[in-house]
Amino acid sequence: MTTRDIDENVRAELNRLRESIDNIDAAVVHMLAERFKCTQQVGHLKAQHHLPPADPDRESRQIERLRQLAESAKLDPAFAEKLLNFIIAEVIRHHETIAASPADSPQTDRIAPKTAPNAAASTATNTAASTDPKASPDA
Amino acid sequence: MTTRDIDENVRAELNRLRESIDNIDAAVVHMLAERFKCTQQVGHLKAQHHLPPADPDRESRQIERLRQLAESAKLDPAFAEKLLNFIIAEVIRHHETIAASPADSPQTDRIAPKTAPNAAASTATNTAASTDPKASPDA
Repeated sequence: MTTRDIDENVRAELNRLRESIDNIDAAVVHMLAERFKCTQQVGHLKAQHHLPPADPDRESRQIERLRQLAESAKLDPAFAEKLLNFIIAEVIRHHETIAASPADSPQTDRIAPKTAPNAAASTATNTAASTDPKASPDA
Repeated sequence: MTTRDIDENVRAELNRLRESIDNIDAAVVHMLAERFKCTQQVGHLKAQHHLPPADPDRESRQIERLRQLAESAKLDPAFAEKLLNFIIAEVIRHHETIAASPADSPQTDRIAPKTAPNAAASTATNTAASTDPKASPDA
């Protein structure tokens, strides 16, 4: 085997791994897009029914569960916890930005938020989470 | 419909959304566990073949691609980019920690890293990324 062969083998292996990384990244992006759709609904549901936006018990259970899942998947549990906090921080940041927007004030006459028109969706930037002014740490 | 009915409906809807969030989180955790397995292999491959750990061109392409994917999924592209940077930072942090460990010194006699014994895996903490001392921003 020549040096050139090794180089080509190495390059092929590197490309193979990078293609897997890219596939996984695409999956994660789409998963998170779906996740923000859920937290957006949670936010509207809570706003409409005057439920407290934050739920520390729920958050504790989420963190504990994620740590256990991470451990079983041989992923650093501390990393999983930090990831959840990163996502929560992002949702809170967006919801604080949008909360000041009059277009996203609570609408109290809706029971089924998922079918209600979402004024914020058309006026906000292209940000799933940004339409979630009352997002809780469910996020 | 009584207030109690509404409360029960709202609670049921909230639980439904939270179950979806939990399912998505489990999927993301497992996806990221698989991703770290890939970047771990990339790290070893690069270390063995004396390839530079960082690849700015690759990273630029990754970021641009992720931003486009995010946009098509109606996810904030800036969030997707921050997420990638968050993951990269985590891998680098772990690889710096482990790089100082004699158990994870490069082994230059391996061509196929995925089949090679991984001394670090058994001695490091339960951290997929921590076994990746030469991780590049492929992470």
